[in-house]
Amino acid sequence: MMSSPGFPSKLLENAVNEFASLPGIGRKTAFRLVMNLLKRDPGEVERFGETIIRLHSEIHYCKICHSIADTEICSICSDDKRDRSTICVVENIQDVMAIENTGQFKGIYHVLGGIISPVDGIGPADLKIDSLEEKVKTGGISEVILALSTTMEGDTTNFYLSRRLGKFDVLLTTLARGVAVGDELEYTDEITLGRAISNRSPYHQ
Amino acid sequence: MMSSPGFPSKLLENAVNEFASLPGIGRKTAFRLVMNLLKRDPGEVERFGETIIRLHSEIHYCKICHSIADTEICSICSDDKRDRSTICVVENIQDVMAIENTGQFKGIYHVLGGIISPVDGIGPADLKIDSLEEKVKTGGISEVILALSTTMEGDTTNFYLSRRLGKFDVLLTTLARGVAVGDELEYTDEITLGRAISNRSPYHQ
Repeated sequence: MMSSPGFPSKLLENAVNEFASLPGIGRKTAFRLVMNLLKRDPGEVERFGETIIRLHSEIHYCKICHSIADTEICSICSDDKRDRSTICVVENIQDVMAIENTGQFKGIYHVLGGIISPVDGIGPADLKIDSLEEKVKTGGISEVILALSTTMEGDTTNFYLSRRLGKFDVLLTTLARGVAVGDELEYTDEITLGRAISNRSPYHQ
Repeated sequence: MMSSPGFPSKLLENAVNEFASLPGIGRKTAFRLVMNLLKRDPGEVERFGETIIRLHSEIHYCKICHSIADTEICSICSDDKRDRSTICVVENIQDVMAIENTGQFKGIYHVLGGIISPVDGIGPADLKIDSLEEKVKTGGISEVILALSTTMEGDTTNFYLSRRLGKFDVLLTTLARGVAVGDELEYTDEITLGRAISNRSPYHQ
């Protein structure tokens, strides 16, 4: 195969095309990234390529919570110290990581793999909802925390899940809504501020 | 090896770290890129990784002009139709591609691999200047076009090259300076505008 006009090498062009296929990476940026790789040690670049190849062949999705894992069951689901009676339902793996980083949650997770979004053509059948219902139905679950985005899609998904899970003997909760820590009141949107006033709590010194 | 706090998988963490090591890619962006790869077909991701691995092992630097090539001599240097008596000296491969895209140059190139920049610790010995002098010394070269950036570093390099090459029977030229095509005069900087007036040319209809 010949390289395109301007490209001195087909291999260089292929590499630029691969990087430019990533979201948010234009052709100029892709070129800069490839030139950066070319300046590095060969071993380093080989390791980069091998890590990408191993991504698909070696990564697992946890059979219990559907999060990403190095083994069949993720480290959280296989941890005896976690409270298995409390399930935190999240949209994706980034959310698991964000909540884990707070150090405030000792239960286990359930990753839906998205939220209901008719605009994007994502319905309940595209999400891991059946397996969630199965867990609750089987018993041993006392609380399901719906930790989804505070968007219309998140609200829709919360409503759908509450219909599916409400018939079982389980407590459904959502994350507290209120003024974010560090936010100034005058810049807080009025819906958030309104909820923060209605749901006000006793002052602790 | 254990994964860091928050990361559900060591392999995922490695992949994010590799992408975050690229210039201008932060950890959040790196995560997004890796999640994009995970959603693709395995074959596609494998090809991406293999292209990166092949970058170092299969790419060549042309023995004549030092540009990137798929073979020992690049397609420009091995093209009989190019004028080998005119050498265009450029900083890097992007510049070769930019000039090739104009379709206005029929000579050959010489890629310096950078410009003299004391701030970055780049001196003449770090650039492909000896091989350029050797070409001119050997003879058969009638013109050397100094096509470097119009920066202080570019000017310094031009001056250095003119000292090294001036002793040979060769015409040294630089790119025309002037008002860029499409630019409005009122927004053109005064140094450029000043040069454009001094170097004014006869009007052609």
